[in-house]
This record gives sequence, structure tokens and C-alpha cells, in this order.
Amino acid sequence: MSKGVTSKKEDFARWYTDIITKAELADYGPVKGTMVIRPYGYSIWTSLKEAFDRRFQETGHVNAYFPLLIPKSFLSKEAEHVKGFAKECAVVTHHRLMANPNGEGLVVDPDSKLEEEVIIRPTSETVIWSMYKKWIQSYRDLPILINQWANVVRWEMRTRLFLRTTEFLWQEGHTAHATPEEAEEEARKILDIYREVLEDVMAIPVLTGLKTEAEKFAGAVHTYCIETMMGDKRALQAGTSHNLGQNFAKAFDVTFQTEGNKLEHVYATSWGVSTRLIGALIMVHGDEKGLRLPPAIAPHQVVVVPIGKNDEDFSAIKDYLATALTALNNDGIRVHVDDRLTVSAGFKFHEWEMKGAPLRLEVGARDMEKGSAVIVRRDTGEKSFIQRDNLVQEVPKLLEEIQSGLFQQAVTFRKENTTTVENYDEFKKQISTEGGFIRCGWDGDPETEAAIREETKASIRLIPFDEKPEGISCIYSGKPAKHEVIFAKAY
Amino acid sequence: MSKGVTSKKEDFARWYTDIITKAELADYGPVKGTMVIRPYGYSIWTSLKEAFDRRFQETGHVNAYFPLLIPKSFLSKEAEHVKGFAKECAVVTHHRLMANPNGEGLVVDPDSKLEEEVIIRPTSETVIWSMYKKWIQSYRDLPILINQWANVVRWEMRTRLFLRTTEFLWQEGHTAHATPEEAEEEARKILDIYREVLEDVMAIPVLTGLKTEAEKFAGAVHTYCIETMMGDKRALQAGTSHNLGQNFAKAFDVTFQTEGNKLEHVYATSWGVSTRLIGALIMVHGDEKGLRLPPAIAPHQVVVVPIGKNDEDFSAIKDYLATALTALNNDGIRVHVDDRLTVSAGFKFHEWEMKGAPLRLEVGARDMEKGSAVIVRRDTGEKSFIQRDNLVQEVPKLLEEIQSGLFQQAVTFRKENTTTVENYDEFKKQISTEGGFIRCGWDGDPETEAAIREETKASIRLIPFDEKPEGISCIYSGKPAKHEVIFAKAY
Repeated sequence: MSKGVTSKKEDFARWYTDIITKAELADYGPVKGTMVIRPYGYSIWTSLKEAFDRRFQETGHVNAYFPLLIPKSFLSKEAEHVKGFAKECAVVTHHRLMANPNGEGLVVDPDSKLEEEVIIRPTSETVIWSMYKKWIQSYRDLPILINQWANVVRWEMRTRLFLRTTEFLWQEGHTAHATPEEAEEEARKILDIYREVLEDVMAIPVLTGLKTEAEKFAGAVHTYCIETMMGDKRALQAGTSHNLGQNFAKAFDVTFQTEGNKLEHVYATSWGVSTRLIGALIMVHGDEKGLRLPPAIAPHQVVVVPIGKNDEDFSAIKDYLATALTALNNDGIRVHVDDRLTVSAGFKFHEWEMKGAPLRLEVGARDMEKGSAVIVRRDTGEKSFIQRDNLVQEVPKLLEEIQSGLFQQAVTFRKENTTTVENYDEFKKQISTEGGFIRCGWDGDPETEAAIREETKASIRLIPFDEKPEGISCIYSGKPAKHEVIFAKAY
Repeated sequence: MSKGVTSKKEDFARWYTDIITKAELADYGPVKGTMVIRPYGYSIWTSLKEAFDRRFQETGHVNAYFPLLIPKSFLSKEAEHVKGFAKECAVVTHHRLMANPNGEGLVVDPDSKLEEEVIIRPTSETVIWSMYKKWIQSYRDLPILINQWANVVRWEMRTRLFLRTTEFLWQEGHTAHATPEEAEEEARKILDIYREVLEDVMAIPVLTGLKTEAEKFAGAVHTYCIETMMGDKRALQAGTSHNLGQNFAKAFDVTFQTEGNKLEHVYATSWGVSTRLIGALIMVHGDEKGLRLPPAIAPHQVVVVPIGKNDEDFSAIKDYLATALTALNNDGIRVHVDDRLTVSAGFKFHEWEMKGAPLRLEVGARDMEKGSAVIVRRDTGEKSFIQRDNLVQEVPKLLEEIQSGLFQQAVTFRKENTTTVENYDEFKKQISTEGGFIRCGWDGDPETEAAIREETKASIRLIPFDEKPEGISCIYSGKPAKHEVIFAKAY
């Protein structure tokens, strides 16, 4: 257990916050519920962005930018959307401050009241569909495959760094299509990109499937999702992809002329992942010593800690490693030499463990004499000698081992904590004691879903694509199951 | 002159807006003064971001993200800063909407009034310095070299796409240093990065120098700037770098323990460039046919327009060019094949002229017979035959010629429109007729500056680094000049 960090077993929530603070990932902003993403956290976000963005581009998507501010009236256009977001909107009502006539500081200038209030986007469907109305006339204008990287604001009452903050960063894709089939294909294609980045880059196994009506996005026909299991066995929704059907096209009256010369409403999707993913990264891979970053996403894959007393010692060590480090850099390995003289080697070991650098390389005078170095794996803590001349060969292999090792650990953990139960009593017991995912039958009735949620706090996380509802019964009503689903308590 | 585009000579302002619309760079957002950056415009912004960001990283800067929302009270902490921004703040006063009890739609829920209003950042000095107070204790914590890419909101009454919008995108660097010399060095270093990107990447020549007290940033000790001349001879401030001295450190009480064990306030800089640069790009290089993009920033450097009737024709042309295009791609040349069948070749020629692609390659059946292609330069309009097998050799050369040609044209234009005048009558005549930059003496008195501005609308754009005030007199007062300055009407 690391200094100043609560034990993960004792208090998972505090452990989580401690890691964020100690690893300098984020800090609390001055306005309640807001977050500062510090450079180390932001560099992880940048890597994630690149991983997603490359895949979006490869599948024909382009980036654009839509305004932060939305007329209040837009939110009321799509009935479900209103219910979803009206209760958590930051509302701008004035556009000027003035000196306080009765004392110190600034007050809102009453003469600057806006004719119509504007809201800060909680998501951009409405403003984007108001533009698509201008841009779409004919089938020739379709499909539109636009993504935006942006900040959004949802006024949350109970916030937690990365997981639920008043403002967060995300990408939101908004596509327009000529046919329902195309929109459906798009929603599924994106879900697959999400799955791929989570599993291959973040080393986080996901379940893929459909949300229930109660859990779907406000305004969607249906919502696909990727669901993940955190280190405390609770579920985290890590990304969603919505088939919006013609809902927004109808709300904003966006029609197009078909090839057959008819007028039809456009079909749509939207999809997003957010800085919440950094929360998942921490909660899936973190341990008592801090973060453990999968190499594919780590800002520094190898951190070199030179053991010495002064600049001269450090220079000698850098010279000793120069050829090897250049070769690693050329292979695309991200190496960082921590040559600070203001802190000790021990301090650095601790800091890079906390920050989750996959490999640490320690080199001192004795190592140089022997033509070797000490290499430490962050995932297993394993420490071993390595010949300097083998670094170029061994480091990439070790990084691959760490990447797949972290993934396998998470797969095993999820497997061990996914259970089936015989009846509702067992269900309740399992949820209230061990927790984890429960895979069982559901009769498809929203009232069943609500009752279980009410009683156990467990919700249906998703209807997995590989469900096998045939021949099983609903865990609550005993009726034949309409779906096989995953229940869990969730973030 | 291009269809639907106002002539640049007849009405520069309308020409500018027409280009933005026709080249699909941006569109008006639903809230007054806001802007939608469309995919083509956004890809230019992405290229610009990358050009700046690479240089920031190379000089040791890191990216981070600070909150959009700032407590109202923060703005009043730095006296000058208040004056600068209080009058143009979007103020959030409530956090919830509700169904209108008296009719349709949504209204602000009065019960959701915030205890303290928050403002949307017009710039982030205040929130960042509130965090630096937490992060900085000792000289070991310095320097902090943080940059952020973000949106900001300034409630502007008269807006123009890219140049002045209520919300805009920018980068804002905020650094903290142990000594005034370091802060000064930083401010100058960044100015040089700005100059380099404008000149080498955007092909826009800049003047570098200092702002006067009247024109400097609210809260700065002094402001460095890069100033550029637009196609209508007006000036545009393209970027600023501020030495903030200890102003914000004092306002937020940020001190550090020096190596000598004393307590001292931290020294600071801030610096920014914004989406306004895209406005500069249009106004410096655009012509009657539309945009002309410098190759270094063009999303597509070469656009291939196949001449044919159907997919088969297009496939044959793509096969014909395959080897050449692959080789160009491998050389890092960005090639786009416009194989749309829904629009004609003529339509495409017009569109890519409007969008400013540096080179257009036309290939039809006859060209294939001759082993050639037609290549058209966007900067000069020059059209010539080129052997297919020479493409790999010639295209990079042509792109270099275009890049330096655009820069040289802009240099010449600025030179031709920068004048010296003998007396204030000539000054007034020059400003009111030809416009452009006037280089002349100024006695250093803010009242002189204000009087000239009042009378002529021309302001001091900067005190250039290469000023030679010795032996010249103030154009207005006749007193010995304290500075040689550049006057111009500005955006």
C-alpha cells in the first residue's frame, strides 16, 4: 500500500480519489462539480483521443465543431430529450457584469438580460440537427458522418472525478443517413470501434449489447452500449451508440429528396465516449501502489531512473544508454528519462509506480560495470537484471506481455465475478453481499426491471448480443424470459 | 469571379463571408454571434493546431484542461482584468429548466438559482492561477509550462465569422516562473513560435513587436504581438504573448520558496492564438475564385479529378495513377481523389478552386493514351501537361513553389501598402484613402494615441522590434518620437 493512499480493499471510493490526486491526474475545480485535468491525466486523454479518432477517420468520419450555446427552445423540440436533459442544464441568462453599486466586487448587470435564455450544451443533437436542416436537401448530401470533440455540461448534484462531473470532455458523433439500414449499420460499426479501443488499447474487456427501454438515451430508438466491470465489481457504462431513427429529423423537420424523387425524413445515429474512460482505466487496472497503465495508452512506456548524485553521474548513465534508447525511440517506444536532481531515486520509484508507467529501468554505477540494468514491471512488480544490449529486443516483448497480461487479469476478474442464480432470493443475496454481474432471465416487463432496481439497486446493464433467452425464466416473475440480461449495481 | 461570390474589389467584407459559405468553412450558429466550424474549416484548424502543438511540445510545454465555468468573484481579483472582461461575460444563473406552468415549452426553474453566479471563461488566467496556488510551493515546482486547447466565450455585439465570434476556439498558454527574466524569455520564445507558424506554415508575413499600454492585454505588464496585413490593407492582430509579471500571482497570492529560502510571488506569462487565424488565411491569400491554401496547411494538397462517365472510367483512371499516388502518399503528400459520380467534373473544378486546393490533377482517356495528366496550380491558375511518371518528382517541387510564392505575394503586398508620411495631414489622407500600414514617429503619449484613433480610426498596431525612433518626430505633436510605430485601421 502506497504512502498517503487508502487501501483499495478497505475503501474503494477513497482509494480511487487518492490515486487521482497522487498520480496528478486531476484536481477539483473552483466551481462545485468541475474538474481540472492535469497534464499527466490529459496526456492519457490525448492518447485515447488519438486511438478513437484514427478509427473514426478510417471509417470515413470527419471532425467539425458546433456551438457551446443552444437556444432554450431547442431542448423542447424532442419530447424525450427534454425529460432527459432539462433538469440538469446550465442556463445563461445575462451577458454582462458590472461594479457592485452597493459595495465590493461585481454583480450581474440587470440590463444585460437575454431575450431568450441559452443553455450550455448537455449534448449537441439539437443544435446539430438545426444545422443539418440547412445542409441536407437531397440523397446526394447523405450520408453525413460528423464527429466532434468537445466539452459538455450537465449540472450534476453528486459528482466524482472523471466519472460524473458537471463539465466533461467527450466525442459525440452525429450521422445522417438515407435509410434505416444504414443508420443501424453505423450504430453497430461504432460500437465495434468502441469495443476495439477498450479491449486492444485500454486492455479493458467489455460486454456489448442493447440497453433496455428504461436505460436508453433520451430520444433514441435504441441504444447500444459497452459495459465494463470495475475493480469493486460494479458496472460502468463506458460508451453508447444510439440509433435515433427519424426522431431528431422529425423534431427539426429534416427531409431529403430520395433517388426516387420522394421526400423523406433522414435517419440518424449519435454516439459518444468521454473522460469517464479515464475513471475506468483507474478502477480496472489500479492496485495498492497506484495506477497501472496499459502500454498502449501510457504517456511513458519506459521510465529510466538514473542512480547517482549529480549531473555528471546522470550524464554518464545517459551516455551508457544512449544507443539503446535511440533504438527504442525509433521503434516507437515512448521512453522518458527522469533526470531530476531535486528528488531522490526512491522518490522517483514511488512516483512512477503511482503513475503506472509499465516499465522502470534503473541504472547505477554497478550496472554500468556489468553492462546491465535493472528492469521492473509495474504490472507484476517483478524485478530483474537485463543486459543493456538486449533492451531493444526485450522491451517491446515485455510491453506486449504487460498489455495482454492486464487484459487477461481483467477478463479473469470479470469471469470470477459474473454469476448465475437460481432464484430471486439468491439474486438479492448475491447483489447485497458479493455484488458483481448477474446473468439471468428477464420477462421484458419495465415494471419487473423497476421493481428489482428499487429493491436491490441493481439495474439491467444490457441485453448482451450473445443472450440465450430460450428455455429460461424471469428471475423475478418466473415467467418465460424474453431476454437474458446482465444485472449489476453501476456507477 | 466565381459564381455566387461577391467581387473582392467591390465589397471585401461580403467577399469574405461568401468565401466562408461557399468553401463550406463555417456557418452561423442558432445563437447570435456563434459559429459552426464545418468539416473543411475544421480540418484546417486541426492542421494549424498540430503545427503549433508540435512546437509547444518541443519547447517543453504540456497540455492540460481547466474548467469552462468560473466563479464570478474570480473575475474581480485582478483590477485590470475586470475592466477587460466583465462587460462581455456569459453569466450562468440557474441550473435547471422546467415545463412552462403557463403554456408551451420550457422555462427556467426559479428554484434552481445558483448561490453565486458563474461565468463562462472569457480566458482562463483566473481559474488557472487559483489552481497554481495549490500546486506551487517551492522553486522545485517551477517552471510550470501548461497550454490548453479550449473554447472561450466573449459576448460580442458585432460579430464576424472567424474574426469575432461570441464563442471561439483557441490555445491559451499559462506559465509560471521563478524569475522575471525567465518569464520574459518565455513570452519572447512563444512569440517566435507564432511568427514561425504564421510565416512558414500559413505563408503569412508578420510584424513582431510590443503593444502600447492602451492596446495591451488586461492584466499584463506588457504584451507582445504578431500583426498581419489583410487583403484590404487593414491590420489583424494574429496572436499575442503576455508577460504578466506578478499581477496574477499577487491577485491569487501564489508564492514560492526560493532556493535561498525566501518567499516570493511567482512570475507569469500567457499567450494565445485562435480560430481567428482562419480568417487571416482567407483574407491574406483568397482571390476572386475563392480560397488559396498554402500547401503546408491544406487538408488536400493535390485533388485528382477523373474525367469520365461512370465507375468503370474512374477505376481505369485510378489504376493508371495508382503507382504515382501511392508514391506521393509515401512522401507525405496529401492526395484526395474526388470520385463522386453525382456531380460533374466542371462542378469539381469550381469547388476545389473555391476550397483552395493547391494542385488539381485532371485525367481523362486522352491523357491516359499519352501517359500524361493535366496539372493546374491554384495560386497562379497555370495549367500544364505533366508526364505521369514525373508526378512523384514534380509535385513536391510545385507545392514548395506555391508555398513560397504565396508568402512572397503577401510580403510584396504588405511592402507596397506600408508607407511613411511627412506630416499629420498626409497621415489622415493616407488612412482615409489608400489605408494600409503607416510607419511613423509617436511621442509615447497615450493622449496622442487616443486623439489619432478618435480622428482617423487608425490605432497603433505595434511598436516593432526593429523600430528606429532616433531623430524622428511624432506625426501628431511634432515632439521628438519616443517610438517608431505602425498605425493602421484594424479588425
